[in-house]
Amino acid sequence: MIKFTIITLFREAIEPYLKASMMWKAADKGLAEFDFVNLRDFGLGPHRSVDDTPYGGGDGMLLRCEPIFAAIESVKTKAPNAKVILPTPVGEIWNQKIARKFADGGTENSKHFIILCPHYEGYDERILSLVDYKVSLGKYVLTGGELPALIIIDSIVRLIPGVLGGEKSAEIESFSDGDNLEYPQYTRPEKFRGMKVPEVLLSGNHGEIAKWRKEHSGKI
Amino acid sequence: MIKFTIITLFREAIEPYLKASMMWKAADKGLAEFDFVNLRDFGLGPHRSVDDTPYGGGDGMLLRCEPIFAAIESVKTKAPNAKVILPTPVGEIWNQKIARKFADGGTENSKHFIILCPHYEGYDERILSLVDYKVSLGKYVLTGGELPALIIIDSIVRLIPGVLGGEKSAEIESFSDGDNLEYPQYTRPEKFRGMKVPEVLLSGNHGEIAKWRKEHSGKI
Repeated sequence: MIKFTIITLFREAIEPYLKASMMWKAADKGLAEFDFVNLRDFGLGPHRSVDDTPYGGGDGMLLRCEPIFAAIESVKTKAPNAKVILPTPVGEIWNQKIARKFADGGTENSKHFIILCPHYEGYDERILSLVDYKVSLGKYVLTGGELPALIIIDSIVRLIPGVLGGEKSAEIESFSDGDNLEYPQYTRPEKFRGMKVPEVLLSGNHGEIAKWRKEHSGKI
Repeated sequence: MIKFTIITLFREAIEPYLKASMMWKAADKGLAEFDFVNLRDFGLGPHRSVDDTPYGGGDGMLLRCEPIFAAIESVKTKAPNAKVILPTPVGEIWNQKIARKFADGGTENSKHFIILCPHYEGYDERILSLVDYKVSLGKYVLTGGELPALIIIDSIVRLIPGVLGGEKSAEIESFSDGDNLEYPQYTRPEKFRGMKVPEVLLSGNHGEIAKWRKEHSGKI
């Protein structure tokens, strides 16, 4: 069982994804568990404020320390070994190897990740003192950490044995062996609008098919 | 007005994201429009099948050409200039510069992108003949193209003038100037659990603050 606790202000934006498709199946089979902590519950004052303006000036609002610390500690009280993941542009770029490392860890019985979704323009730097893994999804900026949280979860959960239909599927695909990309694939019909499936794939000659696929596998 | 038409089998998984937060605000202000095409509507036979096994053998099911071509053509009949984006591991790695290029194009009055979400184990290679932009989100594998579609949309839409609160916010942040990362930021309280905001940021000396921020900006 692997467990993800998502700390966010926008549960309603992302929970439906986890209730659909493979993520739902993983939860239904008892292979993964997802829950949410509403950061607003730990906000300050009558308006449950979670952000404030930056010292030294500048646009935008930053997430304050107090609500974040309180939210994380509310989870850690019950799960002291849970690890905190923060999606942030300064993190390590996410890749299949890291996803697999997390998924392998996830087959232990007590693996539990807390994903903290930053929002607004950023966060108070002192929040990093609570973070175990800083993860960047790539060199682009998003409105918040919610989509990165889903990507991290999706890429990990699909690797857990039993989640995908064919056990081998997760192994043979793109990036499973470093930077290898999958070969071109074709299905019926044999001819579609003048475009034909390569003859070799129809030949039944497994050696030739394997050779063709190897020759046509891409690299990044 | 920028418009995104998403071709997917899992509208219910991703539509809520577009109805929350900044994406909703952009739509509400008439700056962006989102709609969906259900690939299943173009499926074959009584079960509206959209996939089949690969020629030459192998695990998994591939999206067939016919439903994809029909779905895209149903959009292009009404919007012949719409461009097709396919999230795929063999695409160009998405970054802030590409997002900005799309957003700038998007300020034209007729900009319309169709995002095709692959699912299952892959797609028939001949689908690429319809695709204008192949986009990869990074070197990792997901259960489908739905999260990449949302990332592409989110990273573009937030750059459209008028979507974010402060017009400058989108300009000064991470990656806006190539690989620059934002500097560390702090907000109240000045001291939290023994961790203090750097003195210079409290000084009110704008020259010193700018210098400190420049020195502490990260690079990838």
